Amino acid sequence: MSSRLLTSLKKVPVEVYPVVASVVGGCVLSGWILVHNFNSSHEFVINKKKGWPYMEEEKSRNEYIKRLFHKENINSGDEIADRRKEESDMSATQTQTTIQGPSTTIDAELDKIKQIFSEELTAGIPEELPEMPQWDESIPHAPKRPITFTEETFKLAIRNALRYFPSKFHAQLAIEFADELRKYGHIYMYRLRPTSYEVRAYPIDVYPARCRQAAAIMLMIHNNLDKKVAQYPHELVTYGGNGSVFSNWAQYRLMLKYLSEMTEEQTLVMYSGHPMGLYPSHPGAPRVVVTNGMVIPNYSSKADYETMYATGVSIYGQMTAGSYCYIGPQGIVHGTTITVMNAGRKYLGVEDLRGKVFITSGLGGMSGAQGKAGVICNSVTVVAEVNEAALRKRYDQGWIMEIVSGLDQLVERLKKARQNKEVVSIAYHGNIVDIWERLAVEDELLVELGSDQTSLHNPYHGGYYPVGLSFEESNQMMVENPDLFKEKVQESLRRQIEAINTLSSRGMKFWDYGNSFLLEASRAKANVMDEKGKFKYPSYVQDIMGDIFSLGFGPFRWVCTSGDITDLDTTDAIAADIIESIMKKEEEKASSETKKREVTKCKLQHRDNHQWIKAAKSHQMVVGSKARILYSNAPGRRAIAAAFNEAVRDGRVKAPIVIRETSNVYDGSHNTADMAVQNFVGDSFRGATWVALHNGGGTGWGESINGGFGLVLDGTPDAGRRADLMLGWDVLNGVSRRAWARNENAEDAITAAMEEDEQLVVTLPHHASDDVLEAAYRGGK
Amino acid sequence: MSSRLLTSLKKVPVEVYPVVASVVGGCVLSGWILVHNFNSSHEFVINKKKGWPYMEEEKSRNEYIKRLFHKENINSGDEIADRRKEESDMSATQTQTTIQGPSTTIDAELDKIKQIFSEELTAGIPEELPEMPQWDESIPHAPKRPITFTEETFKLAIRNALRYFPSKFHAQLAIEFADELRKYGHIYMYRLRPTSYEVRAYPIDVYPARCRQAAAIMLMIHNNLDKKVAQYPHELVTYGGNGSVFSNWAQYRLMLKYLSEMTEEQTLVMYSGHPMGLYPSHPGAPRVVVTNGMVIPNYSSKADYETMYATGVSIYGQMTAGSYCYIGPQGIVHGTTITVMNAGRKYLGVEDLRGKVFITSGLGGMSGAQGKAGVICNSVTVVAEVNEAALRKRYDQGWIMEIVSGLDQLVERLKKARQNKEVVSIAYHGNIVDIWERLAVEDELLVELGSDQTSLHNPYHGGYYPVGLSFEESNQMMVENPDLFKEKVQESLRRQIEAINTLSSRGMKFWDYGNSFLLEASRAKANVMDEKGKFKYPSYVQDIMGDIFSLGFGPFRWVCTSGDITDLDTTDAIAADIIESIMKKEEEKASSETKKREVTKCKLQHRDNHQWIKAAKSHQMVVGSKARILYSNAPGRRAIAAAFNEAVRDGRVKAPIVIRETSNVYDGSHNTADMAVQNFVGDSFRGATWVALHNGGGTGWGESINGGFGLVLDGTPDAGRRADLMLGWDVLNGVSRRAWARNENAEDAITAAMEEDEQLVVTLPHHASDDVLEAAYRGGK
Repeated sequence: MSSRLLTSLKKVPVEVYPVVASVVGGCVLSGWILVHNFNSSHEFVINKKKGWPYMEEEKSRNEYIKRLFHKENINSGDEIADRRKEESDMSATQTQTTIQGPSTTIDAELDKIKQIFSEELTAGIPEELPEMPQWDESIPHAPKRPITFTEETFKLAIRNALRYFPSKFHAQLAIEFADELRKYGHIYMYRLRPTSYEVRAYPIDVYPARCRQAAAIMLMIHNNLDKKVAQYPHELVTYGGNGSVFSNWAQYRLMLKYLSEMTEEQTLVMYSGHPMGLYPSHPGAPRVVVTNGMVIPNYSSKADYETMYATGVSIYGQMTAGSYCYIGPQGIVHGTTITVMNAGRKYLGVEDLRGKVFITSGLGGMSGAQGKAGVICNSVTVVAEVNEAALRKRYDQGWIMEIVSGLDQLVERLKKARQNKEVVSIAYHGNIVDIWERLAVEDELLVELGSDQTSLHNPYHGGYYPVGLSFEESNQMMVENPDLFKEKVQESLRRQIEAINTLSSRGMKFWDYGNSFLLEASRAKANVMDEKGKFKYPSYVQDIMGDIFSLGFGPFRWVCTSGDITDLDTTDAIAADIIESIMKKEEEKASSETKKREVTKCKLQHRDNHQWIKAAKSHQMVVGSKARILYSNAPGRRAIAAAFNEAVRDGRVKAPIVIRETSNVYDGSHNTADMAVQNFVGDSFRGATWVALHNGGGTGWGESINGGFGLVLDGTPDAGRRADLMLGWDVLNGVSRRAWARNENAEDAITAAMEEDEQLVVTLPHHASDDVLEAAYRGGK
Repeated sequence: MSSRLLTSLKKVPVEVYPVVASVVGGCVLSGWILVHNFNSSHEFVINKKKGWPYMEEEKSRNEYIKRLFHKENINSGDEIADRRKEESDMSATQTQTTIQGPSTTIDAELDKIKQIFSEELTAGIPEELPEMPQWDESIPHAPKRPITFTEETFKLAIRNALRYFPSKFHAQLAIEFADELRKYGHIYMYRLRPTSYEVRAYPIDVYPARCRQAAAIMLMIHNNLDKKVAQYPHELVTYGGNGSVFSNWAQYRLMLKYLSEMTEEQTLVMYSGHPMGLYPSHPGAPRVVVTNGMVIPNYSSKADYETMYATGVSIYGQMTAGSYCYIGPQGIVHGTTITVMNAGRKYLGVEDLRGKVFITSGLGGMSGAQGKAGVICNSVTVVAEVNEAALRKRYDQGWIMEIVSGLDQLVERLKKARQNKEVVSIAYHGNIVDIWERLAVEDELLVELGSDQTSLHNPYHGGYYPVGLSFEESNQMMVENPDLFKEKVQESLRRQIEAINTLSSRGMKFWDYGNSFLLEASRAKANVMDEKGKFKYPSYVQDIMGDIFSLGFGPFRWVCTSGDITDLDTTDAIAADIIESIMKKEEEKASSETKKREVTKCKLQHRDNHQWIKAAKSHQMVVGSKARILYSNAPGRRAIAAAFNEAVRDGRVKAPIVIRETSNVYDGSHNTADMAVQNFVGDSFRGATWVALHNGGGTGWGESINGGFGLVLDGTPDAGRRADLMLGWDVLNGVSRRAWARNENAEDAITAAMEEDEQLVVTLPHHASDDVLEAAYRGGK
């Protein structure tokens, strides 16, 4: 299919577009049709009356309906497990089954949701207080916040919460909110959590809105709070423990109301979860501007955060929680995939990891992505995990292919897998240090790449389990004898480094995965520093990702707002075709030396992402909204966005991208945040549908500033223009900053970009020699 | 004249506009004509050939020419003093003399400047290194930066500086920059300081530019670096000790080059002084986006700043330095005037301070404005100053009217002035504590209002001089015996509070002027806390200004880019007329109770500013660019901007406004910065010509986040639309935030604004009673 699509894209679409156009003709009012997978073997029916397409096979459709009207209080843990199983099956079988057209039942159900939404989402804070929903034990809930209130802050928290409600409810709510404060350390306003519908991303035309952009944002918010997506959905936390969409359910209701009534002449202003209101603007302006956790820098301690969060005046939006564009674990799988591919390229000089062994540890949370990423890279991947429950979960989810216990068995399995060049992910139930020490004494070097993803941000309270103790023994000791446990952790880290050093001296390549492994090892006095006082091993952020970011490559995500999985297939195919076409086109037209050099480097990155996007569907990583991630550079993003916009016409692709402050800048500017702020503001007037600026991403409150945006591609020429202008800026700003910081890849990338656009004029650095600097430094001595 | 102008504005201009229009007709190409004071007694000539108007009386014109070609290395301190005297005379006599048309000499001189600019400003970093300019002793220079370099940071600073230059110059420049680092703690690149022209705000059409907005920004930058305006012009510091426009002269040259070549399809991106480059955008986008000192919050210590500044990767832009809109001491005179007027209103219940006595201290730096402000308020003002040089300077400048030494003499003079209701400013040469203690024992209460503006941010190193020691004794002791000096300061503060307490108990009203007076007094264990553990006296920021800001009133500045003082007169008159008209109109149409309440409060603020603008000219506060400041609210700013834009047509009014994070919010959000960031981004897509976001204003690095903008009013309908949309947002965002924080004035103001614009929909707070909160808090006990 890809070659046909490519042809059509090149020619001005003849095969695809007329069909889409006719669809559009039938549903201009709702306007939310996405292009379909015309070349697949699926049948499909466009529901012209409702204006959105529906196709899923029978089983999943039943499941779908069930979810739509799912009442949480009749939920049980088993039921959820069943549903998860069902959906996993569904996603596996979806493309192998002939899909039937939508039944009228589905229409009716969505009509009901539409009806509910048209009443509830437009109502804002309800005029009468709803019943208190039952506490749902089957859903994970946030732990109690670590805050001690003074009388003043306690009352302030309640006073601030009450300002959302008329005074007739104050007496009742004050007591209730005080109760929440005492029990949970925060006022979530559970009473306002909606129960007449399940919170999840519905097809976009179900949302009541006066402009399509607003409906798209509603969908994204619902996805971030979907119980299948969010970490603590009832506490409005999407991920990362405290990455919030809102501070409380009143803000949720108020924001949806504003979105339901906003026009293209207004902009909704979000102050750290609080919807300040709608302000007159214009159609070219963002529909929503989000700031999260913006604080005066010297008042950005963790204690400040706890107080500001508890009193409802700020939230920690992480990166994609408070900007409404979280797409589940797929992002981390992709990031890990790219890291491993580039590690192979950089450290082993190979483009294919088949037959190479990658060993690491950790299968909980984000580290759980390692097995899947290793498989997408074609490697033999071994991940050690001490916690059997976590290990089983990943296995059950299909994120790991085999489980091995015992070192002899592991060594046997490794040898066989290497020999046969198997593509396999193996979970080892036990301690990673045992693996390293065993491999260090094997005659044959059985591992090419090594890393570690234990949670060393938190080494003494369960983030790291020392070798020699069982999981249970560790859990006991860390509570009962924390000093001894700390000793054990440090001893374990020293042994781990020792074995890694041995393997490294024999040719293994090891890198730090940004989990403070090297830092904690150095604190444990492990032999991890070189003679210059630097770490012996590189950090992936700096050594691997930095080079990639410098080329302008970074995360590019999109969501198919129809909620239709085949739309996602189509966009995957379009993206793959565009990447192929770009690799060819760029090579052909590269004239200057700089451009040629840049094209060569970029081609490898494009290739990795091509490999990713081709395999992505089969790895079943979609949870919640139908979303995809890949990395691309400025020309790539612009071309993909243009192709989506063109191919879609009256359909829609939303491409939220989050750009982070990153390392690998050599000019001492690593703690500056000008780039993030410039991106945010520059996107805002170049056409973003919404923009967001956050204090702290994965690195924690006060530890970074990052900006992001969402862009609605609705098939109009205007959307195409916006995408082109904004995506060019967004990427090239980051590249410029890296170029100015003397990053060679970035200098090539920005020089190449200037060759193509004479309106782009960027200051480039001259490089000074060490000799000159030495002379200047010694001059005065 | 004002009534005539008002009539014309109301009717659609018939008297004024045709004249302007005809002017416009003659100079479309240069396009930088401002409206003139047609109703004054001045003659005027429009120079059609050059496209800009010129009129000054003969003497000042000579002075003007002299300045244009002034070579600094032939400068002497005396000459500067003479020039200042001359200009002071000029500004005093200007409006009382019939002004002649411009001579051809002037045209020729400006032609020369234009020629020089067309070569130098467009060149950027020169291809050959210019001669090192001579060190100019007559100009104040920044003290050496307080930084200790490591070898790494020392070399990094040089490496970063060298990146602006091709490698053939590196050997020479590295030695030179190392020398600057050792001598000054910073690399200013003195060699690149321009010497073929004097840096100052020239008439706008002298600047080489492809778009008018860029030329306007050039003018503003030049004004900020004018030696008559800037604190340390050669170190690129405009005010506040380290409020920088750039980090070095290479950045200056590069930015002017970019501005000279930019089109309306590009945006210049400024990263903390560094011009990153021109990026494609569109005519509706800002021409320049400035971020200064944006850092990751947890890396915002003073030491971080020193290192980042020294290595050239960040600057402290203060508020108006790094955003190119400093207008000299006028701003602080206005702020002090408004404060004193509102103190009289709030604390004394009077609208006229005639016959009331205001006593304070400090005549250096910003505190120097107190005498002039007191006079504009019609009060009897006494300012104590221990430093005779500072006191003499203010007297010579005409900022103080009389000098008194000796307490008996002061008391005599005070009694007389009170009795005669004199409008007079008196400098007392001596210690403020002596005054307070003497007045405390006088039978008659001789003072109604009291404050203090000693530099208590820096109490032990010259910011405060203790009573009982002479100025010289203090200077000696703080160096030779700092511990004893500290004791003396604290004892002095205790005595000062004691006397103030006595006077307050008898009816004097005292307030803290934001100079940490109360804080340091409490640290000195002075009797300054009430029974609840709060300060006994209010802070002006919270108690006085907060109420004003809540109404939406805040600084509104404009610059007449023709450089013509009569243009400023005209705009003063237009502003005064608009204020009158608004007071009337608002009162007439106030229908709801809220609106009536809001109008009543606003009227008082409008009246203060009317009094200010009527008197402003006579107080001779214009230094550098022809600029004015006043406070207004959203309707006021929009109306004034519209009137300027309309009245000007093809002339130009530039209205930079800086909005600060302020106090007086009751919901615990005082340390959040969402509002500042929202203002910055919201202005950017609503039509600002440039926007800026800063870390730290007057409060210091890391202590605030504040945003600002500049807007070019060029008389086009587009400019009018932008002004209306942006000024509405900019003010009402701040008001919304204060309203949400339960500030009553702000609630009234935003409610009134919503009544007038149905597109504005703002979340308003419900107020909770203390009883409800008490019950909730006790509930669990």
